[in-house]
Amino acid sequence: MDSVVSSVTTKAKGVTVTNTSTLGFRVWDVADYVIPAQEENSLFIMTNMITTVNQTQGLCPELPDKTTVCKSDANCAAGSSGTHSNGIATGRCVLFNETVKTCEVAAWCPVEDDTHVPEPAFLKAAENFTLLVKNNIWYPKFNFSKRNILPNVTTTYLKSCIYDAITDPFCPIFRLGKIVENAGHSFQDMAIEGGIMGIQINWDCNLDRIASLCLPRYSFRRLDTRDVDHNVSPGYNFRFAKYYSDPTGAEHRTLIKAYGIRFDIIVFGKAGKFDIIPTMINIGSGLALLGVATVLCDVIVLYCMKKRYYYREKKYKYVEDYEQGLGSEMDQ
Amino acid sequence: MDSVVSSVTTKAKGVTVTNTSTLGFRVWDVADYVIPAQEENSLFIMTNMITTVNQTQGLCPELPDKTTVCKSDANCAAGSSGTHSNGIATGRCVLFNETVKTCEVAAWCPVEDDTHVPEPAFLKAAENFTLLVKNNIWYPKFNFSKRNILPNVTTTYLKSCIYDAITDPFCPIFRLGKIVENAGHSFQDMAIEGGIMGIQINWDCNLDRIASLCLPRYSFRRLDTRDVDHNVSPGYNFRFAKYYSDPTGAEHRTLIKAYGIRFDIIVFGKAGKFDIIPTMINIGSGLALLGVATVLCDVIVLYCMKKRYYYREKKYKYVEDYEQGLGSEMDQ
Amino acid sequence: MDSVVSSVTTKAKGVTVTNTSTLGFRVWDVADYVIPAQEENSLFIMTNMITTVNQTQGLCPELPDKTTVCKSDANCAAGSSGTHSNGIATGRCVLFNETVKTCEVAAWCPVEDDTHVPEPAFLKAAENFTLLVKNNIWYPKFNFSKRNILPNVTTTYLKSCIYDAITDPFCPIFRLGKIVENAGHSFQDMAIEGGIMGIQINWDCNLDRIASLCLPRYSFRRLDTRDVDHNVSPGYNFRFAKYYSDPTGAEHRTLIKAYGIRFDIIVFGKAGKFDIIPTMINIGSGLALLGVATVLCDVIVLYCMKKRYYYREKKYKYVEDYEQGLGSEMDQ
Repeated sequence: MDSVVSSVTTKAKGVTVTNTSTLGFRVWDVADYVIPAQEENSLFIMTNMITTVNQTQGLCPELPDKTTVCKSDANCAAGSSGTHSNGIATGRCVLFNETVKTCEVAAWCPVEDDTHVPEPAFLKAAENFTLLVKNNIWYPKFNFSKRNILPNVTTTYLKSCIYDAITDPFCPIFRLGKIVENAGHSFQDMAIEGGIMGIQINWDCNLDRIASLCLPRYSFRRLDTRDVDHNVSPGYNFRFAKYYSDPTGAEHRTLIKAYGIRFDIIVFGKAGKFDIIPTMINIGSGLALLGVATVLCDVIVLYCMKKRYYYREKKYKYVEDYEQGLGSEMDQ
Repeated sequence: MDSVVSSVTTKAKGVTVTNTSTLGFRVWDVADYVIPAQEENSLFIMTNMITTVNQTQGLCPELPDKTTVCKSDANCAAGSSGTHSNGIATGRCVLFNETVKTCEVAAWCPVEDDTHVPEPAFLKAAENFTLLVKNNIWYPKFNFSKRNILPNVTTTYLKSCIYDAITDPFCPIFRLGKIVENAGHSFQDMAIEGGIMGIQINWDCNLDRIASLCLPRYSFRRLDTRDVDHNVSPGYNFRFAKYYSDPTGAEHRTLIKAYGIRFDIIVFGKAGKFDIIPTMINIGSGLALLGVATVLCDVIVLYCMKKRYYYREKKYKYVEDYEQGLGSEMDQ
Repeated sequence: MDSVVSSVTTKAKGVTVTNTSTLGFRVWDVADYVIPAQEENSLFIMTNMITTVNQTQGLCPELPDKTTVCKSDANCAAGSSGTHSNGIATGRCVLFNETVKTCEVAAWCPVEDDTHVPEPAFLKAAENFTLLVKNNIWYPKFNFSKRNILPNVTTTYLKSCIYDAITDPFCPIFRLGKIVENAGHSFQDMAIEGGIMGIQINWDCNLDRIASLCLPRYSFRRLDTRDVDHNVSPGYNFRFAKYYSDPTGAEHRTLIKAYGIRFDIIVFGKAGKFDIIPTMINIGSGLALLGVATVLCDVIVLYCMKKRYYYREKKYKYVEDYEQGLGSEMDQ
């Protein structure tokens, strides 16, 4: 038996447009929604986002919540910073809007307001994006290597095929919506708060048979369990920023809280060839177990049956101790 | 036996210059060609690229191919987007150049033209870049840890050495060209379309012996098989963009299709110490197998040989049933 | 027995301010100090940095060291580039400062001066940042899945808890300083030159018992051994750049040499259920070993004891060869 060594590369394709008041009409392509641009065994596709444009270093009121709402400067401890703060408190209490006052913070201003996650998802069209997974495997012990783009696949087929468990089980191009659906979830639901999808590639192979029978089998599974009863901290998101320089040389940034689906490609596999040693160990143990039968029969016959004394007498040969034995022999 | 727990960090070094009409004279250093800046067990070095500068959101003609070339607006379905499209069709048919008309798309304009991959590779000097691999391993069961920078290595040696299988087998600094060469491939060929190289570190150790004999062994392997007969979707590339802000506040970007070599560091290893339990299981099974000899001898003697009745009579002691036995004893 | 399949997501929280002459007063939040924004099983937190602002492509003198200091142009080979160079030598020898002349290079200018690492660490306040680790595990053979946010954990608890081995062993939120401290190191020391911390989650479970007893156990370990006696190439750092566009369209960048702590989340685990086959193999081998007792007794009695001839005579039944046997029987 040998475990698989694998390399994975992924490539997403797909374009969509959005039209919002803050960002205007905007086209989104791969370079915009795949973050970071490349990873080893996984790929993140942004499906939803909260954008805070033109942030600069400065002073501004915090978002109102039960720790930041204030009546006067006395409520705001200068220099303090809670776990969920966007900045460091200056100690002043300032107007957040016409009715609410909150503590002022030194931060990237204005601070991000992530109380409302866009619904439906901002890039809901990601359902139709495709993902090409290239996977090379190698079984070091048997020096056997193979890729998931099978030898009989042509460029033409690869340009048009979409994986389907029944009709195209060996096409390495997946529609994102179908991956999530195959795992029994709704893409549009998952797109809102994000999540982790596992794309499992199973390469279990019997290398005693011909190599062309060693084929990848794909399966899909949502890796971040989303139980209805305990949905504490659901989904998957992270923040990143794009930094710009003003004509004056000052820096400003666009902060993006990106919600999306991370596709983790998990390559399983064990290859086996017939090997005499483990087989012999198992046979040996099996034979030894057969010995239990003898012992059990003996125990029953010699200790449990009514006529046990009779059988015991027949089974054992009593050898008298040497001197006694010689003595009895001399007696004869 | 125990499996290895490992941490890997990598650091590339090297500078090169290029001089092209689009980009002018340009120096490339680590921050330019390593993307993303850090990964857990791998490092991507860009060796070739297709740069599309000054893209802005707008409308422009698609690249001509058999689905985008058009005669009139009737050939272009508004809102449609193929798998390989750069944008969303507006439904208009416009001039791509003086002779060809293609469907207009809403996209980052101008669209990328990646039909010709630069040959030789743009950053072909990457062959002489070096890669320092720092690897710490730990065998939890034996609480044994070691790093691939061996205790006797000095800073001076580390500043000047380059790994060589024969002369410097424990130098953790690799010349990129040599890695690819050791795996039996040509760096300049691989640099054009990219690929994946595995740097394997084997830490198989017999911990019954002294710790200084537990040494890393390096080997190299191209992980993306590149068969001549099936070169469907070869190499490794991905797209990323650098975003800039115009003085007016509008966003433009430079799109880069990066071809390059991803170095995956794969740490193998099993450490063993003598342990009595698996040894006993194997001895036990072995002994039981010896029992097969007895059984085989018996079978031959008692069932196969001509004189089997004679031997059988001598081997078995017939014990009559209790009453009969008593009877026969009384008879005596 | 089955091995664990796991997915990990991480999220850091915390804000700090710095005030230096080069950068001025500056707030640092998650988008600034987590690089790259997301990774599969790890998270890098920048704790220290050397910033080189406003680099442009150009010609400038190299940093002085023993290979770059020059007296005249004759000391500088045009086109050469050492392993540690910042650029390609132009062949001219120019003034680095009033007293020292170094070779001129084509590079991103001015070149980075990383001879002095800031001490104490620039973002030393990272000690109080927190890290939320979300981990879902799955045992495929038993179709058993669980997450490290236990079912009885409420949102309120999760918003305020901090992991502590004794008081809060199941809180998935870690204070960075405590992680390093638990591993027996000093956060402030580690923050200066960086390092790798392993957060180990152990999910060893006996699935014959109820699922609620299958609980994660956290442990911490510094993965980059930092021996006092061989501190060649210590710590962890990498370089990245933020690219900006001048109003004229020219590109400049800020180069950052980031020192920091990479937190690798390592998920261990084996789940077991009682299975008859390996149990039988072990029992079989054990029984066979009992057979050794018989053999040993026989060996002692028949070969070692003084009266061995007597016992041997009693143990073996000599069966004469068939003809002889018949002969002797006829004799009777």
